[in-house]
Amino acid sequence: MPVSTPDLAFVLTLSCPNRVGIVYAVSKFLFERGLNITDSAQYDDLSTGRFFMRVAFAVTDAPHSRDELQAAFATVAEGLDMVWTLRDRAVKPRVMILVSKFDHCLIDLLYRTSIGELDMEIPAIVSNHRDAYQLAAAYDIPFHHLPVSRDNKEEQEDRLLDLARREAVDLIVLARYMQILSDRMCASLPCPAINIHHSFLPSFKGAMPYHQAHKRGVKLIGATAHYVTPDLDEGPIIEQDIARVTHAMTPEDLIAVGRDTEKLVLARAVRLHIEDRILPNDHKTVVFR
Amino acid sequence: MPVSTPDLAFVLTLSCPNRVGIVYAVSKFLFERGLNITDSAQYDDLSTGRFFMRVAFAVTDAPHSRDELQAAFATVAEGLDMVWTLRDRAVKPRVMILVSKFDHCLIDLLYRTSIGELDMEIPAIVSNHRDAYQLAAAYDIPFHHLPVSRDNKEEQEDRLLDLARREAVDLIVLARYMQILSDRMCASLPCPAINIHHSFLPSFKGAMPYHQAHKRGVKLIGATAHYVTPDLDEGPIIEQDIARVTHAMTPEDLIAVGRDTEKLVLARAVRLHIEDRILPNDHKTVVFR
Amino acid sequence: MPVSTPDLAFVLTLSCPNRVGIVYAVSKFLFERGLNITDSAQYDDLSTGRFFMRVAFAVTDAPHSRDELQAAFATVAEGLDMVWTLRDRAVKPRVMILVSKFDHCLIDLLYRTSIGELDMEIPAIVSNHRDAYQLAAAYDIPFHHLPVSRDNKEEQEDRLLDLARREAVDLIVLARYMQILSDRMCASLPCPAINIHHSFLPSFKGAMPYHQAHKRGVKLIGATAHYVTPDLDEGPIIEQDIARVTHAMTPEDLIAVGRDTEKLVLARAVRLHIEDRILPNDHKTVVFR
Amino acid sequence: MPVSTPDLAFVLTLSCPNRVGIVYAVSKFLFERGLNITDSAQYDDLSTGRFFMRVAFAVTDAPHSRDELQAAFATVAEGLDMVWTLRDRAVKPRVMILVSKFDHCLIDLLYRTSIGELDMEIPAIVSNHRDAYQLAAAYDIPFHHLPVSRDNKEEQEDRLLDLARREAVDLIVLARYMQILSDRMCASLPCPAINIHHSFLPSFKGAMPYHQAHKRGVKLIGATAHYVTPDLDEGPIIEQDIARVTHAMTPEDLIAVGRDTEKLVLARAVRLHIEDRILPNDHKTVVFR
Repeated sequence: MPVSTPDLAFVLTLSCPNRVGIVYAVSKFLFERGLNITDSAQYDDLSTGRFFMRVAFAVTDAPHSRDELQAAFATVAEGLDMVWTLRDRAVKPRVMILVSKFDHCLIDLLYRTSIGELDMEIPAIVSNHRDAYQLAAAYDIPFHHLPVSRDNKEEQEDRLLDLARREAVDLIVLARYMQILSDRMCASLPCPAINIHHSFLPSFKGAMPYHQAHKRGVKLIGATAHYVTPDLDEGPIIEQDIARVTHAMTPEDLIAVGRDTEKLVLARAVRLHIEDRILPNDHKTVVFR
Repeated sequence: MPVSTPDLAFVLTLSCPNRVGIVYAVSKFLFERGLNITDSAQYDDLSTGRFFMRVAFAVTDAPHSRDELQAAFATVAEGLDMVWTLRDRAVKPRVMILVSKFDHCLIDLLYRTSIGELDMEIPAIVSNHRDAYQLAAAYDIPFHHLPVSRDNKEEQEDRLLDLARREAVDLIVLARYMQILSDRMCASLPCPAINIHHSFLPSFKGAMPYHQAHKRGVKLIGATAHYVTPDLDEGPIIEQDIARVTHAMTPEDLIAVGRDTEKLVLARAVRLHIEDRILPNDHKTVVFR
Repeated sequence: MPVSTPDLAFVLTLSCPNRVGIVYAVSKFLFERGLNITDSAQYDDLSTGRFFMRVAFAVTDAPHSRDELQAAFATVAEGLDMVWTLRDRAVKPRVMILVSKFDHCLIDLLYRTSIGELDMEIPAIVSNHRDAYQLAAAYDIPFHHLPVSRDNKEEQEDRLLDLARREAVDLIVLARYMQILSDRMCASLPCPAINIHHSFLPSFKGAMPYHQAHKRGVKLIGATAHYVTPDLDEGPIIEQDIARVTHAMTPEDLIAVGRDTEKLVLARAVRLHIEDRILPNDHKTVVFR
Repeated sequence: MPVSTPDLAFVLTLSCPNRVGIVYAVSKFLFERGLNITDSAQYDDLSTGRFFMRVAFAVTDAPHSRDELQAAFATVAEGLDMVWTLRDRAVKPRVMILVSKFDHCLIDLLYRTSIGELDMEIPAIVSNHRDAYQLAAAYDIPFHHLPVSRDNKEEQEDRLLDLARREAVDLIVLARYMQILSDRMCASLPCPAINIHHSFLPSFKGAMPYHQAHKRGVKLIGATAHYVTPDLDEGPIIEQDIARVTHAMTPEDLIAVGRDTEKLVLARAVRLHIEDRILPNDHKTVVFR
C-alpha cells in the first residue's frame, strides 16, 4: 500500500454478483471519459459468487465532477446489481475519535494526521474522561467531555450520536475507548466505527485481555482492529499484528509492549478505511492493499 | 539461543522457593569442583515466589561423571528444596515421533536431526497410517504402524506406551498426529510429550482450526507448540508464531501457508526442550533462550 | 497470494508505455471472447511512465487454445507497444535446479513440488558434487554430476547450457550453487535464473556473508532471492526476509538460523516466478502477490 | 526484557578475561551482604576469551549505599581485572536529545518518558532548527537552538559539549539529528551517544538511504540504532528492525513506512542502554535482554 496519493483523483469501490464483463464495463465507462486507471484490485469470492473491486482513477484532460460521474455510473451499477461508492480524494474524510484514559493511540493518530500521513480531518475528540483535553487543544481540535455513569449512559450516547451527525463524520474511531457501546447505539451509528481491541481476536475477548494472556502463558500478544457491531469484539476484522513476549513479563509489561502494536494496527486500519481499501463481505472484510 | 554446543558439558536446571543465596550456593558448588559456567539464566516469579535457573557448565580440568555430580549436588538441592535435573550433554535425548498423514513436520525434524541441528536420537516413528514408512526407511529409523479404530484405541495406546518405555524415550513429539490421546494415556506417559497445534492458541482449539480461522476472517494465522495434558489444546505453551494471510485465501491456502509456521514452531520447541531450556511453572513454561 | 489455482486458466502479463485505455483494451479483448478475469493487478511506474499488468482469466464457455489467444492478442499488444507473455496454467513450468553441498533449499523445493505447493516439473538436478544424487533418486529426477575445476569450467558450463536447452527448461534455480557463473554463461542463459544469496542484499555481497555479518555484529541476518545477471549479487531482487540473531551466536549459529530464511525466501521467489507474478522493470522487479 | 522494575535496586555490569570462578566471586560478594539477585545474564566470547555479565540485585534487609558497595566491590573487580559499572536504579539517567527537522523519534521518546516507559530524565533538547521548540515547551524541557553553518560548526559543537557536561548527561541521543558530528567532537563526547540510521546497516550508509533503497529495489527497508564513533554509520550496532515494502512505493512512501521502524528501534536501543543491558565488546555489542 503506497503512501503518496495524487491530487485530482477518485476512488470507486463496488461489489456485485460475479459474471463475465464487470471489469470490461467499468473500464469502458472510464475509457469513454478519458479517465486513467491508476490502481486497480479485484477479488472473486468463490464460496459466495460475489465480486469485489476497487479502482482508483485520475482525471487527465477534461474536468469531471464527482456528482456528474456519480450520476453517470449509476446506470452501469444498476445493470450489474452493484453496491458501490465513489469518492473524490480531494475531499478529506471526517473522523471523530473516542478515547478514555490511555492516550497512546490518540496521540499516534493526531501525529500521523498532522504530518499528512493520514489524509483526514478530525472535527471532534470525545472522551468520558478529561485527560485528553490538552492534547486536543495542542492540535486545535474541539474536545467533548461526555462522562458516562450507570444513570446517564443512554443520554450520553445520544449526545455522541448527535455530535457525529452534526459534524457529518464519515468514520468513528474508538482509540482505546473503554465504554461498551449499547446495542441501541451500535444500530444507530451514522457511519462505520473502528475499534482497537488489545488482543489477537478471537482470543481474549472482553475485559483485561493482557491479564488473560498473561494467565494463559502465551508467547505472543496481539492487537486487532475491527468494525464495531452489536456483538462485542465479534465485528469484521480489518487488521491484526502481534509482538513477542516472554515468561518474565508481568501483565504490566504486556500492556507496555502492547501499546506499540495497538498504535500500529489502529493506524493501519484507519488508513485502509479512509483510502477506501476495505470492502465489507458479510461478517468479514476484503482489504485491497 | 546459539546453535553450537561444546562437547564435554552438563546442564543443570532447578526451581525452588526464592530466597537469598541460591545463585551463590550453585556457583560455590561448581567453583569448588573447578567447573566453568558457560551459560546461565534465571527467573524469579514474583507472583508465586518461585525461583527458576538453568546453568550450563563445562568440565575443564578434572574428570567428573554425571553420577558423581548428581550425588554431590543432591545435598545442595535438598537444603534449598529444589526440583532439579542434571544432564550430560554428550548423551543424546531419545525422541519418539508420532505422525498421521501430513508429513511436513516429520520431514523437517528428520532433516534437522540428520544434519546435527537437533542433537537427538530418534529410535522410533509411530503412525496410525502407512504413509511415512518410506521416509522412516530413508533415515533408517524403525517404523511402527499402529492403526487406530474406535475398537482398538485403548489397545494401541498401550502398545504405544510399551514402545516408549522399551525404547526409553525422553520425549514424545506429536508431529501432526491427528489422534486425540485418551486421558488414561496422558496420565500414563513415561515422559513429556510436545504437540503442534495448527492455530494461535487459545484461538481455534480442536478440529479444523484453519477452517475456523477462515470463517472468522482473521488476518494472521498461527501455530502453537505445547506440552500434552489431558485437557485438549490447554497444555503449557512452549512456542508460537504466525503468518500473514489475506481475504483472498481459501482454507486450503491457509493450510499451505500454515505448514511453514508449524514446522518452524515445532522444531524450535523440540530444540528448546532437548537443550533443557524449558522449565515447567504450573500450567505455564519458563523458557530460557 | 493465494495458493490454490483453477484448472483451466491463463495468465497474461504485459508492460508498455502508460496511456489511457490499456485496461479497457485488455478487458474488451477478454470480454469479447467470454473469458472471465479471475485476478488482476497493475502498476504505473510514475518515474518511468511505464505500465505493468498481470491478468489471470479462466475459460468458461467456449474452448480457447493458447495459440489462438496468442495470435489474437498480438494485434492488441502491437498497437500498445507491449512486452507481454501468455501462459496456459495447465502446462507446468520446467525448472532445473543447481546445487552444491548444502541441500536444505533443494530438499525444500523438492518437497513443495511433490505435494503440489509448487506447480512445476523438475526435469534435472545438476551439481558440482555427488552429495545430492540419492535425494534426486528418491524423487525420481535425473541427476547430473558436473564437477567444476579451474580447467574445465567453460566446458562444464557448456554442458549445463546444453542440458537446459535440451530439457527446454523455463527457469534455472541456483539453490545454494556455490559456483560463480561466468559472464559468458550469464549472457547465454536460455531462460531466467534465480539465485538465493545468504545475506540481506546489498549488504554482504560475495563470499561467506554469514561470517561478514558476524564480524560486523548485526542484529538481523537475511536472505535475498534475485535474478542472475553478470554482476555478482547485483541482479533484480525478488524477495527478501530476515531472522533475529544475538551477540551469543557464532558464524556457525548464523548459518543454522539462516537456513530457514534461505529456504522460505527461495521457495517464495520460485513460486512468484512460476505463477508469472514477477515482471522485470529495468534492474528492479514488479511483484504482484 | 520485562518492563517493570523494582524500586530499590542496583545493576552491576562487568567484563573481564574469562576464568573459572567469576560468577562465584560475584555471587559470594552479594550473598555476604544479604543482597538478592533478581536478574542475571552472562556471555563468554569464545573467540576473544572475554567474559561479560550483568547482574541486577535488590537490597532486602540492610541498607546499602551505592558508594559503599562501589568501594567494596572494587577489590573483587581488581583481582579479576574487570571493567565494570554499578548503578543505583533509583537514580534516573540523564539523556540529552538532539534533533533536526523530523520530530517523530523525538515525540516518541518524550511520550515514552512521560508515561514512565523510559525511566530517564531529559534535561535538554538541542536542535539546529527551531521546529521542535513548542514540543519541548509542552513537556517543559529546556530547548537549545544551535543552528549550524559551515562557518560556526566547531563553535556550535563546543557549545553542545559544554551543555552536555554542564547538565551532566549520561547519554546523548541523536533522534534524526542530520548533522554529521566532527571527529573532534566524537572524540570529546563526555558520554556515549546513540544514533538512529534510517537503513539496515551496513546497507545504505550516508545520505538519503531511503532513496538508495528505492533505487536498488529492495523488498525490505530497515533502521539501525548504533553507538556514535568517528567512522560514520560504522559504530557498534545495538538494535535493528525492518519493514516490508513493495515495488509500488515511492521514496516518499519508504520514508513514511520507515518512520515507524525508526521510532521503535531507537526507543528499544535507548531503553536497553539506560537499563545497562548493553556492554561494549570491541566494535560490537553484547545485549542482555
